[in-house]
Amino acid sequence: MQNRRYVLVQHTDKAPIEECVAWRTDLIPTPGPGEVLTRTLLLSVDPANRGWMSSTPPSYIKGVGIGDTVRCSSIDEVVESRHPDFRPGDVVEAMSGWQDYAVAAGHALRKIEPRGELALEFSLYGLSGLTAYVGLMDIGRPKPGETLFVSAAAGSVGTIVGQLAKAAGCRVVGSAGSDAKCRWLVDELGFDAAVNYKDGPLRKRLREACPAGIDIYFDNTGGEALQAAVLLANERARIVCCGVISRWTNDGPDQGIRGIPGLIAMKSMLMQGFIVFDNLHRRNEAFGVLGRLAADRRLKVKDDLVEGLENAPRALAGLFAGQNMGKRIIRVAERSAA
Amino acid sequence: MQNRRYVLVQHTDKAPIEECVAWRTDLIPTPGPGEVLTRTLLLSVDPANRGWMSSTPPSYIKGVGIGDTVRCSSIDEVVESRHPDFRPGDVVEAMSGWQDYAVAAGHALRKIEPRGELALEFSLYGLSGLTAYVGLMDIGRPKPGETLFVSAAAGSVGTIVGQLAKAAGCRVVGSAGSDAKCRWLVDELGFDAAVNYKDGPLRKRLREACPAGIDIYFDNTGGEALQAAVLLANERARIVCCGVISRWTNDGPDQGIRGIPGLIAMKSMLMQGFIVFDNLHRRNEAFGVLGRLAADRRLKVKDDLVEGLENAPRALAGLFAGQNMGKRIIRVAERSAA
Repeated sequence: MQNRRYVLVQHTDKAPIEECVAWRTDLIPTPGPGEVLTRTLLLSVDPANRGWMSSTPPSYIKGVGIGDTVRCSSIDEVVESRHPDFRPGDVVEAMSGWQDYAVAAGHALRKIEPRGELALEFSLYGLSGLTAYVGLMDIGRPKPGETLFVSAAAGSVGTIVGQLAKAAGCRVVGSAGSDAKCRWLVDELGFDAAVNYKDGPLRKRLREACPAGIDIYFDNTGGEALQAAVLLANERARIVCCGVISRWTNDGPDQGIRGIPGLIAMKSMLMQGFIVFDNLHRRNEAFGVLGRLAADRRLKVKDDLVEGLENAPRALAGLFAGQNMGKRIIRVAERSAA
Repeated sequence: MQNRRYVLVQHTDKAPIEECVAWRTDLIPTPGPGEVLTRTLLLSVDPANRGWMSSTPPSYIKGVGIGDTVRCSSIDEVVESRHPDFRPGDVVEAMSGWQDYAVAAGHALRKIEPRGELALEFSLYGLSGLTAYVGLMDIGRPKPGETLFVSAAAGSVGTIVGQLAKAAGCRVVGSAGSDAKCRWLVDELGFDAAVNYKDGPLRKRLREACPAGIDIYFDNTGGEALQAAVLLANERARIVCCGVISRWTNDGPDQGIRGIPGLIAMKSMLMQGFIVFDNLHRRNEAFGVLGRLAADRRLKVKDDLVEGLENAPRALAGLFAGQNMGKRIIRVAERSAA
């Protein structure tokens, strides 16, 4: 019985993701006391995964070391348990990363009772949903009639942010990287407008889409979208600093954003970041709200399924190339109990 | 009876302040119904005065037009009143600007009962004190044991911010532009450390002065101090965006700050601006706290008095050259009732 996995061979600072990992085949590990052996079913593909593999990982998490299995969150099935809380066949949330099998301490696993299709545990009831909910509700604080702009709007977080803000009574505008995504945001997800950031200067197009200015900007990208939002922001606007995808796709030096801190001071604006892992205790609250909206068909989520563990590097690289619509997930194996 | 005043002849975008104003002598204006004629006693000299004279004034206030009297807040004495709430000899807070006499609507004036020396109404019980209090307590939210860094620490706001943060149990570090100011901050005002930003790279010196990192940065300057603070900020740090003096002293283009938004997101930081005029209803609360600390000698303020209305342009220009220690005030006339 073998375990296939990708290990880090080079930090992701400059090189393409595909060149930073190597494919290994080892023996399946054996669980010790208190540990559990799990088999990977689904892997979540998130922009943050790339930062965890850089030589300067964020302070909230330990970086992935050279030779370590690439890290990401997973939905697994328990194969063998030496922990009293788990039994073979249980479905658990884990951080198994890019491999078929993993051994983890029982306390690092969370048993889940799937609420429908297993992929919903990532697309709606996972970190994307929690990120969207906490960032929007706590920092963005939407009020009816306000205008929200969200970048990477067709991504896993952006789709939920936009629909949640619509449910809160906002005018919602998103940016995305293709006309097809923009049409999907407006026609299927109910966004009021969407702008293709590849269609010329974003600021001008955004000004047209936001005639009353911007009250909330949910920033998944940094870069040009943040620059435009700072300039178009109304007094007391809130900027939710969630991600910096543009950091990875710009080759030049970090340019900085004009108008910071001047416009922040003069417009009484707020910019705030947050770490989703600090908010795990709010899952029930968040998933309750998201689940009710989904049941009412006011919130639609979309999986962007990639088949096969071997395609993990391409799946992650594709996120930064803007390939995904909705939540990108790698399907590694079918549930054996199902 | 003549009224001496300075009027704006050129916006302050590029030119030195002295070249943007012209000295005029007119007749003293006459109050209409509901209006009050006042005589200027003291003028407050604030960095914001310069922004109000630029061609792109901040959105919270109307800019000073060409030909208008230069605007600033003032302490005046009522000369003639056609408003029932005011009588000759009353002391009022006004926005008379750079002139000897002004006419204002009664509702634009606020009668004050001086709590001691008249200059205290600017140095402690004025906008500087309110700015320091609101920015620090609402956005900075100091906790005992945290480290606060404040730029322009020897200025009117910075001195109060630092002492208020000391009273709240913080380690307090300030930056200022001379060794004399730095000694004054530490020896007289009780700062834990002060760094002269003209003594080589600020970031290195600040790291030494803040061995546990920075939890709160009260930003009066933008520029190098903000850059250093963003890089040295701890998780969940708060940056109070109060002013951007460096905008006026840097000739180059607005450079932007490295690490924004990336470090804001990754460290769960907060940056927030505020407008003191939105907080006038909190004067009693703020001045109650500041007054009690001053009575306990835990808060010292210092006037930086400039004599004579004719010296107003030099007094304001000097702020940006870092001449002042404490609150810069122009004494225009003595109180006649005194």
